[in-house]
Amino acid sequence: MRTANRRSGGRSAGVKTGGRAAPRQETTADRIKDYILGEGLQPGDLLPTEAELCEHLGVSRSNVREAVRQLTTLDIVEVRHGHGTFVGNMSLDALVESLVFRGVLVPGDDLRALREVIDLRLTLDLAMAERIVDAFRGTTNPELHALVKEMVAKATGGSPFPDEDRAFHTGLLARLDNSLVGQLVGAFWDVHTAVVPKLGVSVAVDLERTARAHGDMLEAAEAGDPERFRLAVTTHYEPIKRSLDERAN
Amino acid sequence: MRTANRRSGGRSAGVKTGGRAAPRQETTADRIKDYILGEGLQPGDLLPTEAELCEHLGVSRSNVREAVRQLTTLDIVEVRHGHGTFVGNMSLDALVESLVFRGVLVPGDDLRALREVIDLRLTLDLAMAERIVDAFRGTTNPELHALVKEMVAKATGGSPFPDEDRAFHTGLLARLDNSLVGQLVGAFWDVHTAVVPKLGVSVAVDLERTARAHGDMLEAAEAGDPERFRLAVTTHYEPIKRSLDERAN
Repeated sequence: MRTANRRSGGRSAGVKTGGRAAPRQETTADRIKDYILGEGLQPGDLLPTEAELCEHLGVSRSNVREAVRQLTTLDIVEVRHGHGTFVGNMSLDALVESLVFRGVLVPGDDLRALREVIDLRLTLDLAMAERIVDAFRGTTNPELHALVKEMVAKATGGSPFPDEDRAFHTGLLARLDNSLVGQLVGAFWDVHTAVVPKLGVSVAVDLERTARAHGDMLEAAEAGDPERFRLAVTTHYEPIKRSLDERAN
Repeated sequence: MRTANRRSGGRSAGVKTGGRAAPRQETTADRIKDYILGEGLQPGDLLPTEAELCEHLGVSRSNVREAVRQLTTLDIVEVRHGHGTFVGNMSLDALVESLVFRGVLVPGDDLRALREVIDLRLTLDLAMAERIVDAFRGTTNPELHALVKEMVAKATGGSPFPDEDRAFHTGLLARLDNSLVGQLVGAFWDVHTAVVPKLGVSVAVDLERTARAHGDMLEAAEAGDPERFRLAVTTHYEPIKRSLDERAN
């Protein structure tokens, strides 16, 4: 985080973050960000062409091209080949990419990085319990029940169910009034599922138990029972936590 | 998150994330990541020169250069000018940059993005209460008390205290057995403090109250009292939350 200050510039270059106030030069990427802000553009809006940006900002083509690539990596802009360059969705993809790589890079230490990701997922799910239960109390959710049914069917047949699993968690959090929480949990889900196979951690055991725990979470939420919801969340993470414990020994 | 799959490749290109299994071409950035993994390099280790990477990977200089820039944005590699290119720390800087920009970009909607960041900080601080209190129970922490004293002194003089504030929160979380939580809270702290001045939200009011709440958090942790800790955390966020509510009206 020490370098956040250098990179997170924008409208006011002197913003202090991370305890440092390093004066910095405004980069071409900063100026494209300023342009987006100045024009009031929103995600999905079309940006000027490369040539137009060169002229507008008074910088070289290669400068603009590099800045666009950098902003693409951060999902601040999105290049759709043949269609143009657009304001991006500022998703958490960059977070996922860094964390996946870190998770794979430093596996020696008892899979610490993966443990931390799973611990954080569990923490957030438990912390959100009351709010999720409040949002679901007394509702019926056939689409989420269908996902649970599909997960249980796959688990019974010995197959994993990552797509249904992710859709279930996303669907649960979509009702919260905080979209960042849902995105963050989704990002950690992606890290978790991308790292697990690369590390050769077995999660085949207890597939069925994990699948059914989703059903318990949903029923507890619909019944308005936060305590039961938290219990189901904990059960849901038990197989992967046990698998990690076994690997550590 | 839809595109996480395309970008989060590495050792096994077929990893499924985000519910998609799009086959993808391995990019030069992926191959540099594979090189880092294959050689067992760790953060801070020196990478081969640009020329050596070109030869090793059989790609052009401009390809390598672009890939290095992309990986730099993600803090997967770090270029130290005049010294070489090193494996980076995989910090959450990219997350901060995207979120800061999003926070500034979409302020119309009752400062929703900033509200979400603050809500998430509060949620994580509360969720970690038991663990922080467990780590601090019965300890004495002169360096953290000194930070509180400095914050109160600055607040009394009408000055903000971002450096001490961040150091305090980082110090509190540094004792946890999950370094990712500390990094994430630090990242959200950076987003928060970078976005607030850009949006012109006043936080000058209640500076002193915020400063003193840090002291209450620390004393509650040392006294081993999670309930009192949670109360102090809630008090700590009240001024900024009230300021946001006033802006919304």
